[in-house]
Amino acid sequence: MRRVVGVIGSGHSSPQGDALAEQVGRYLAERGAVLVCGGLGGIMEAASRGCAEAGGDVLGILPGNSALSANPYVTVPVVTGMGHARNVIIAHTAQALIAIEGEYGTLSEIAISLKLGKPVVQLGSRSHIQKTLKAETAEQAVDMIFNVLEGGSIGAE
Amino acid sequence: MRRVVGVIGSGHSSPQGDALAEQVGRYLAERGAVLVCGGLGGIMEAASRGCAEAGGDVLGILPGNSALSANPYVTVPVVTGMGHARNVIIAHTAQALIAIEGEYGTLSEIAISLKLGKPVVQLGSRSHIQKTLKAETAEQAVDMIFNVLEGGSIGAE
Amino acid sequence: MRRVVGVIGSGHSSPQGDALAEQVGRYLAERGAVLVCGGLGGIMEAASRGCAEAGGDVLGILPGNSALSANPYVTVPVVTGMGHARNVIIAHTAQALIAIEGEYGTLSEIAISLKLGKPVVQLGSRSHIQKTLKAETAEQAVDMIFNVLEGGSIGAE
Amino acid sequence: MRRVVGVIGSGHSSPQGDALAEQVGRYLAERGAVLVCGGLGGIMEAASRGCAEAGGDVLGILPGNSALSANPYVTVPVVTGMGHARNVIIAHTAQALIAIEGEYGTLSEIAISLKLGKPVVQLGSRSHIQKTLKAETAEQAVDMIFNVLEGGSIGAE
Repeated sequence: MRRVVGVIGSGHSSPQGDALAEQVGRYLAERGAVLVCGGLGGIMEAASRGCAEAGGDVLGILPGNSALSANPYVTVPVVTGMGHARNVIIAHTAQALIAIEGEYGTLSEIAISLKLGKPVVQLGSRSHIQKTLKAETAEQAVDMIFNVLEGGSIGAE
Repeated sequence: MRRVVGVIGSGHSSPQGDALAEQVGRYLAERGAVLVCGGLGGIMEAASRGCAEAGGDVLGILPGNSALSANPYVTVPVVTGMGHARNVIIAHTAQALIAIEGEYGTLSEIAISLKLGKPVVQLGSRSHIQKTLKAETAEQAVDMIFNVLEGGSIGAE
Repeated sequence: MRRVVGVIGSGHSSPQGDALAEQVGRYLAERGAVLVCGGLGGIMEAASRGCAEAGGDVLGILPGNSALSANPYVTVPVVTGMGHARNVIIAHTAQALIAIEGEYGTLSEIAISLKLGKPVVQLGSRSHIQKTLKAETAEQAVDMIFNVLEGGSIGAE
Repeated sequence: MRRVVGVIGSGHSSPQGDALAEQVGRYLAERGAVLVCGGLGGIMEAASRGCAEAGGDVLGILPGNSALSANPYVTVPVVTGMGHARNVIIAHTAQALIAIEGEYGTLSEIAISLKLGKPVVQLGSRSHIQKTLKAETAEQAVDMIFNVLEGGSIGAE
């Protein structure tokens, strides 16, 4: 089965956040992982663009009722019609997650992911959440994810 | 955006149902559609096998908490942890659906799909539900689906 | 634990359907049951009115994001934000259900309820679904429900 | 419409947390509010007991498939079968929430509630989340909730 990695973050992102997200998306594609995200704008769109433009598959778990709400880089839209409850599906579907910037929606996804025992890397974040891993660069974040998923050890704090 | 076609039906299927489902899966792959289904056994597994063995993508919307519950032909598992509510996601995600055999779970998916205005083809079914299309062969069912999605007219009864 | 009985049916109902639903709501209140429904208009509102005006509790499982969408007779609004997936919650929450008129949304609720093994009475319906019970009057429907829940036998067809 | 107040917190609680939760439940009942919670043990059960023993209504939004999983003080069980996604329903259904102790599940509920713009009081918590209100006693927490819901101003930090 293929690696499925989540990228979570705000729909209202900064240029720096977008740049990190796009790099993360590209590295995931290059390493053969499927990217799963919320399928909308901001961090989600930047990561989707990086992944799709590198030839990767982008699974967008959409909150609304129509695939038309997906950003243009989603290759497989999953239409839930379930609003914020779709965040729980992202946490269940990803084997590990990278959080970039983000607000309360992202915090809820981090919390559910940790509750489910999924590894979570916070990339370029100012606020620390216990039990998450920290990365400074996109490459480092993706390396950490693959390291954890492939059984290498990494010290969570 | 790629065509996304749902295949719905019982987890406890007959050999005839499985044969139809496998053919439907293969035709969908050959025509470039993504197959979306519930990701488990019976009709779902037969359709997944037909699609995956012909090189197609199989999206499995799983009711439980683990990707390990997916049948071996699912290429992209979506783990919902939401039980029967995942049926609603299948109906939202598919642009059109083919129902094969099936019991109450399938009936609920047909009903939600019709409520959402999605075309539904019943293949090899003894019981007729108003507003669904009827097909006798897998090829006819897939042709109907593509015909409707591409704007050709087909008389629903 | 109190009896919890579902009433399901269309948001676009006939005067006859509304009259039946209102009677059902009143009988449920008089027998001490909590009524659970989708919380909106049509059959849901008529049943809610009958129940609330007789002093009963009405649990409205709402599809949208606000309690303000509830009909005025709902005494406890449950706000799901999950669209049609809320139908699955109604089926899980009710110990037994009475279906009045209804279209595809109602059909999906009947199907999920039968899948979950819940007794379903169809009241004043023209179309028969296998395994449901049939009633001609509101009193008969409520009697059937209590009979089944209290362990009396009733022949399902 | 009645006040509906959420109480969220861990299923594995301390004696101090339980004492606070039970007081909160009692004060909510005395002021006529419906208590909504996750319906299981720990903080949820302590709050339910306080509310029910003071004659209040306790709405338990359950993650599993059976009302039998509810703690004995839940007066209206809502059975979702949706696992962690039921946390989103609690956030939508409560007009305001009180968080007591709690771990990642509780953090996810706080985050979703803040995302939805619901007032959240953290009671007796060591870790501060931005935009939540802080209370030291159960009485103070319930006062804050009613003050906010009735339009009085309170300075969130």
